[in-house]
Amino acid sequence: MDKDIKEIEDSINDWHPGSSVDCVILGYENQKLKVLLLQLEFEELWMLPGGMIHKDEDLKDAAYRVLRERTGLDSIYLKQFHTFGHKSRPNIANIAASEKGKGFSTYLKSNYPQYYNWMNRRYITTGYFALVDISKVECVKKQINEKHEWIAINNLPELIMDHAKIIYKCLDFIRMQLNYLPISTNLLPNEFTMKDLQKLYESFLNEKLERSNFQRKMLKLGVFKRLKKKMAGAPNKAPYLYCFNEDKYNELVKKGIGIL
Amino acid sequence: MDKDIKEIEDSINDWHPGSSVDCVILGYENQKLKVLLLQLEFEELWMLPGGMIHKDEDLKDAAYRVLRERTGLDSIYLKQFHTFGHKSRPNIANIAASEKGKGFSTYLKSNYPQYYNWMNRRYITTGYFALVDISKVECVKKQINEKHEWIAINNLPELIMDHAKIIYKCLDFIRMQLNYLPISTNLLPNEFTMKDLQKLYESFLNEKLERSNFQRKMLKLGVFKRLKKKMAGAPNKAPYLYCFNEDKYNELVKKGIGIL
Repeated sequence: MDKDIKEIEDSINDWHPGSSVDCVILGYENQKLKVLLLQLEFEELWMLPGGMIHKDEDLKDAAYRVLRERTGLDSIYLKQFHTFGHKSRPNIANIAASEKGKGFSTYLKSNYPQYYNWMNRRYITTGYFALVDISKVECVKKQINEKHEWIAINNLPELIMDHAKIIYKCLDFIRMQLNYLPISTNLLPNEFTMKDLQKLYESFLNEKLERSNFQRKMLKLGVFKRLKKKMAGAPNKAPYLYCFNEDKYNELVKKGIGIL
Repeated sequence: MDKDIKEIEDSINDWHPGSSVDCVILGYENQKLKVLLLQLEFEELWMLPGGMIHKDEDLKDAAYRVLRERTGLDSIYLKQFHTFGHKSRPNIANIAASEKGKGFSTYLKSNYPQYYNWMNRRYITTGYFALVDISKVECVKKQINEKHEWIAINNLPELIMDHAKIIYKCLDFIRMQLNYLPISTNLLPNEFTMKDLQKLYESFLNEKLERSNFQRKMLKLGVFKRLKKKMAGAPNKAPYLYCFNEDKYNELVKKGIGIL
């Protein structure tokens, strides 16, 4: 047996059957919310980084492994948001039915038949999202000649399977909990202005917010600490700088931030 | 082959391998938040109603099926909250290691060996919660001589596997989103007083709330409509009755209730 195929067959037996993880890795750059997508070089197919779960691996650890393998980051904010288990979740056979997916399916079938059969199952996939600092990410190239790109979420390309749906569900999840998630500490520099924070919120909500109302509500949350120094510039015009108060945030989350 | 065993073997081939659902069915009775638990008659083991997923069944439909089968209710508020995929999620073999689980494991192994083997896998389970009107529930008795009971969540018995953890995670999830979930419309009668609502919140938060502060914040949400009639009793003392304004709620959820 071909050594490569043997290796794949061996490794196949090592995976949990029928479950997988997919990761929505979000970053913020030039006032735009972006998601890390992979593309097969010989195709125009874009996809989320994802993978299967080792038989002796926690679901969450599988998500961490995928992130580490793809982004090179070890310590990242990672949170489960939803499990996708529609019976018609398209498997490889379904992908082959689409014009763009044909090449990928044929390639896999002829080069990795066992892998093809294994992937051609119904996977129930659990979505995790990560909030990362794009400047610290060193994306790693994996098999099947992937390239990767940070793509603005309001300008997504065509994605395979239900990956677009997974991204939209993730954004819905984050929007619902915007005040409960430490988005600023993961996506903004350590020190930021209220305007920076507002731009970040706007990128998630995809709408303009009213400045004074936003600032009042944000400051009322009590998790942003105003620093003594101001932004460099003309002293009388320079906006205040803030930092995220993680201790205060954790305390509030415990007590039920914003619930009552 | 024994007919029963043959039937089980046939049905086993019909299930998605390695995935399951578990349902936290919550109701509210006598000012207490309660969860529906099942017990094996020959054991003291309590468990959540749950089950496997048919190969051609949506994950969500599997959860609905379990609920329908156990509670007799067809139309219920059901929501996914978390997927549990710890590698050491105890399977039947682990259950057998506990004093109370020994009987169940032995019973299953000797009466349904194929079923035992099938269940003795690592299942990644997705948790759903339902909010139901206890008075409308007609619990159905299933195989292995189950009995069922509504048990107050602050007085849980010993549960098998990680089922206690699943319940606590569910309550955490609900607490985090108390204002975003239509808990009152599912757990209170159509007309209720602010005191009723406060008691319901307190049962989730497991703490006493300050009356005027609670009322002010609840009414500010704008999803409770004050009715013209008051609670029966002395007119000048009778509290106002309210109902849940579902249209207003849906509108607010779309706009991002409580987010900013």
